[in-house]
Amino acid sequence: MTEKDGAPAARTVLQQCLQARLQVKPHDEQSEAQFVQIDRGMVIYVCFFKGATDDLLPKMVSTLLNLRLCESDSGKLVSVLELPGSLLIIPQATLGGKAKGRGMQYHNNISKEDGLRLYSTFVSLCEKELMAAAGSRAAVTVQHGTYGNRQVLKLDTNGPYTHLMEF
Amino acid sequence: MTEKDGAPAARTVLQQCLQARLQVKPHDEQSEAQFVQIDRGMVIYVCFFKGATDDLLPKMVSTLLNLRLCESDSGKLVSVLELPGSLLIIPQATLGGKAKGRGMQYHNNISKEDGLRLYSTFVSLCEKELMAAAGSRAAVTVQHGTYGNRQVLKLDTNGPYTHLMEF
Repeated sequence: MTEKDGAPAARTVLQQCLQARLQVKPHDEQSEAQFVQIDRGMVIYVCFFKGATDDLLPKMVSTLLNLRLCESDSGKLVSVLELPGSLLIIPQATLGGKAKGRGMQYHNNISKEDGLRLYSTFVSLCEKELMAAAGSRAAVTVQHGTYGNRQVLKLDTNGPYTHLMEF
Repeated sequence: MTEKDGAPAARTVLQQCLQARLQVKPHDEQSEAQFVQIDRGMVIYVCFFKGATDDLLPKMVSTLLNLRLCESDSGKLVSVLELPGSLLIIPQATLGGKAKGRGMQYHNNISKEDGLRLYSTFVSLCEKELMAAAGSRAAVTVQHGTYGNRQVLKLDTNGPYTHLMEF
């Protein structure tokens, strides 16, 4: 796996939230801006690198959703599936940046086309896992940003407990 | 330097904000909770690893504050010093976590005592650089969280443009 030889195939940043709201369509002359929103749960910022393939995704989703990163009401750490909490998935190509002088370069980022495909599958797998775990507890949802757009985000936390996970 | 041999001495995550508010003292029986707040600028989440020393800090601060990560009104990328924007610095030990099974371990994190010292110096250097660059434009400030506490954060962005920088 790419994890072993040093260069990651995907980079994620995880933050816990009480509420998070993301714009999925900017306003235009015809209509207001559109937003998605989750309450308590986890924000996943995700970036894929060149060489990332679909077979990476099941392990990635399973790891992220089963890691004990969320604080339950009793203060115990549980996974977002156990909480159960909602997910807000945000495509974040900037996470692939490397400093060169005073600028950032994104040469290792995956192509837009492949990235969109992986991102869509990643979102679907998260939906499947969360729905399977949460069952009929309808309050939890998976929401996500639109790939390639500006991710206008509003975040409210009781401590983001920011984690980095690479795959 | 530690950067070369693979293991970083410090990890930072950077997010752009329109406004960010952080609790610096929880409420208790005597008093209300206390918060610090910045308007437009950059949030720096920072975590030091074992082996990090003071001589790392000047380069680290200079790099973070001079990288062109911020969008100016004209849409051009400029540094937070050039914007000029404010800084909110958040100690974030969770950034040093490594997954082991379903839990996270923080064995490489610096000791609390050394971490607090580096964090305090880091904040001071950021203040010095921002004040030197912004001069009398009094609207920009450096605010920061209290080391070792829960970082209750509220973030409003026009796109966080999340970046990872390791030193």
